[in-house]
Amino acid sequence: MRGAGADHANARAAVIDVIRAAGTISRTEIVNTTRLTPGTVSGEVRRLLDEGLVVEVGRAPSTGGKPRRLLELVASSRFAVGIHLDHDGVTYALADLGGAIVARRRVDGVGEAEPDDVIRAMAREAAGIVEDAQVDPARVLGLGVVSPGPLVAATGMVMSRPSLHRWVDYPLAARLEAASGLPVVVDNDATAAAVGEHWTRASEPSAAFSALYMATGIGSGTIVDGVPYRGASSNTGEIGHVCVAVSGPMCWCGNRGCVEAVAGPASVVAAARAAGVDVGAREGVETLERGAGLLRAFGRVVDAAHAGDARARAILADSARYVAVAAQTLCSMMDVDLVVLTGPAFALAGELYLPVVQERVSRAVVAHGHGVRVRVSAHANQAAAVGAAALVLQSELVPRRFGVRLLVGAER
Amino acid sequence: MRGAGADHANARAAVIDVIRAAGTISRTEIVNTTRLTPGTVSGEVRRLLDEGLVVEVGRAPSTGGKPRRLLELVASSRFAVGIHLDHDGVTYALADLGGAIVARRRVDGVGEAEPDDVIRAMAREAAGIVEDAQVDPARVLGLGVVSPGPLVAATGMVMSRPSLHRWVDYPLAARLEAASGLPVVVDNDATAAAVGEHWTRASEPSAAFSALYMATGIGSGTIVDGVPYRGASSNTGEIGHVCVAVSGPMCWCGNRGCVEAVAGPASVVAAARAAGVDVGAREGVETLERGAGLLRAFGRVVDAAHAGDARARAILADSARYVAVAAQTLCSMMDVDLVVLTGPAFALAGELYLPVVQERVSRAVVAHGHGVRVRVSAHANQAAAVGAAALVLQSELVPRRFGVRLLVGAER
Repeated sequence: MRGAGADHANARAAVIDVIRAAGTISRTEIVNTTRLTPGTVSGEVRRLLDEGLVVEVGRAPSTGGKPRRLLELVASSRFAVGIHLDHDGVTYALADLGGAIVARRRVDGVGEAEPDDVIRAMAREAAGIVEDAQVDPARVLGLGVVSPGPLVAATGMVMSRPSLHRWVDYPLAARLEAASGLPVVVDNDATAAAVGEHWTRASEPSAAFSALYMATGIGSGTIVDGVPYRGASSNTGEIGHVCVAVSGPMCWCGNRGCVEAVAGPASVVAAARAAGVDVGAREGVETLERGAGLLRAFGRVVDAAHAGDARARAILADSARYVAVAAQTLCSMMDVDLVVLTGPAFALAGELYLPVVQERVSRAVVAHGHGVRVRVSAHANQAAAVGAAALVLQSELVPRRFGVRLLVGAER
Repeated sequence: MRGAGADHANARAAVIDVIRAAGTISRTEIVNTTRLTPGTVSGEVRRLLDEGLVVEVGRAPSTGGKPRRLLELVASSRFAVGIHLDHDGVTYALADLGGAIVARRRVDGVGEAEPDDVIRAMAREAAGIVEDAQVDPARVLGLGVVSPGPLVAATGMVMSRPSLHRWVDYPLAARLEAASGLPVVVDNDATAAAVGEHWTRASEPSAAFSALYMATGIGSGTIVDGVPYRGASSNTGEIGHVCVAVSGPMCWCGNRGCVEAVAGPASVVAAARAAGVDVGAREGVETLERGAGLLRAFGRVVDAAHAGDARARAILADSARYVAVAAQTLCSMMDVDLVVLTGPAFALAGELYLPVVQERVSRAVVAHGHGVRVRVSAHANQAAAVGAAALVLQSELVPRRFGVRLLVGAER
């Protein structure tokens, strides 16, 4: 794409994002906020009106001059399907342009199924959720697929992860595009969760925030000025594999003392079982992780803690202590002013971890310069699926990374 | 600044950066690399020729069509003064547009001097180094000041750091601008070191790289696609305060088991002295750190290790083990493909740390997707001063962060 096209794409992205963030806004306010010229804003708004993405919804109170017409995104004008692939199964979420989930379904049994079969089922389910919701397929922008990282974003080939071993080197994005006829975006669950928080405005305004995502594994994603931090290969924020104990237990990644190995749900469940807490399952933790039961077992430990079980409380407190160290590392490395605890494990136990994490991050070096707020996501349990849909909305509508790339492409 | 102005600034920055990176390059190649339009590139190049920043140096071999004129930056057309403020003293480096140091001087004794006196001396020394080098003051773009972080980049007020306690809340940038009459950029030493590596092309091409900076403290700076990662407040990459041992020794920052406390030069010197290694100083480590001797004492431990002292070797190996964990954390969080060891401590001991760090980062999760190279900076000892000058060149000539901000300013 040449410069003029890129300039237009950047301006369009900026205008859409400002309208989305504001709810309703006038053209003049868009000019003031984006610092684009009035002519550019006017032209982009006209195109968005023509495409039905934006609608005029009334007039702002007069300030003496001509009343200002207010603009708003049309939530039902575009949709995206978020697909969260994990060992337990696949979650489908149909999100509208505002990031609201209008339909959702969950299908069991990915771990041992053939990827090709899963891909065909995915395309079918994605079409089905759109049809059942009576959404015009022409309004669906694409499919976002997330799975536990690391992965290869450029090709959508998922890399090694023990719970999804059949997906190693599988060209997921290409196969799913072929099967569905729609654009496919692939990312890791934690980065998607961060994009979902950003897109749905579930988080309060922030210059830079991180999503600390805990499911069976632990990851993080960071958004600065509305743009995900991606590093060299989109495999950033692997906070689960940051070492917090050099002589600690072995992690599946091959190192000792990773946060995930020391404090993740698998270690909590193993410790709870060893201490005699009823975790509602007899399988070993490794079997649990390959199967569907790890988070259920983790939930039993959380329930026991809430019921006053001192062993469960102590084990979760120990996990929280290390997760809090990880959150502090996140703040120290990424310099964020907000940490959002999200993912299904925090949907179960977020309120138990929150005060421990908040206390610890307030002692991070960056906290001398600005506060660091911590909160639990409003949609922690569906964060990856919401994020998967938001990835599509972001990449199809406000692909701002391209704008950055344009300026720096020379250096690659 | 309105859109048109910002577009021009972005295009100018992209063109300068491509010429700098390439050495010599034709207009056509600039168009291909930046994806700007031929008209935009032609206009920007004409302005740069008019300003004397760029010169035509000959013609590329004909490929059948019209021979292409080659462009090159004029190194002597612009200069910047880098000022590295630490407890030991102040280092001044006059760098040309290519990032080459054309003059350098060092003045002792900042720690206990009054900041106002230091600022006056700084302005005098900066003018002096320019004059002695017989550089036209009109060609000096500004002064870059770096000090150990954290700091407040927007105002230049340095925050708490024990070795520079008099500088807390001091409006360094404003006072130095007033005293020197030149633009002043302030940043932390590690980010500056990364910018210096980038600007001087000391590092090989990289999609994302980190400078792991060790002086008396430990920090890091990360550059992605040529742009420093800055987070919410430019206090990113505080790898020295990442916890590697939850029950480890207290750090000055108030937490336990920080990398800096466990493995930094102060801990190496303390351990060496306790083991009977002659560190060439009798003061306690705290006194050493406030005074001028810590890195000299660290150098004595390194010398002892090179001379075969098993105690010194073991102590440095222990430090390297934790520094390597920190480097792995850097890779896992930032997803970089290159780690550059820099700063005066690595100037002394980089070759001892290098193999340990290289082995460890090859086991980072991201290393499954791409290799991570590690090397010692070619100007590790002067990295902060070189970086300080490069910050000015970057902020005055290729202020690309603005381009990003333009698109996302709405969200602040």
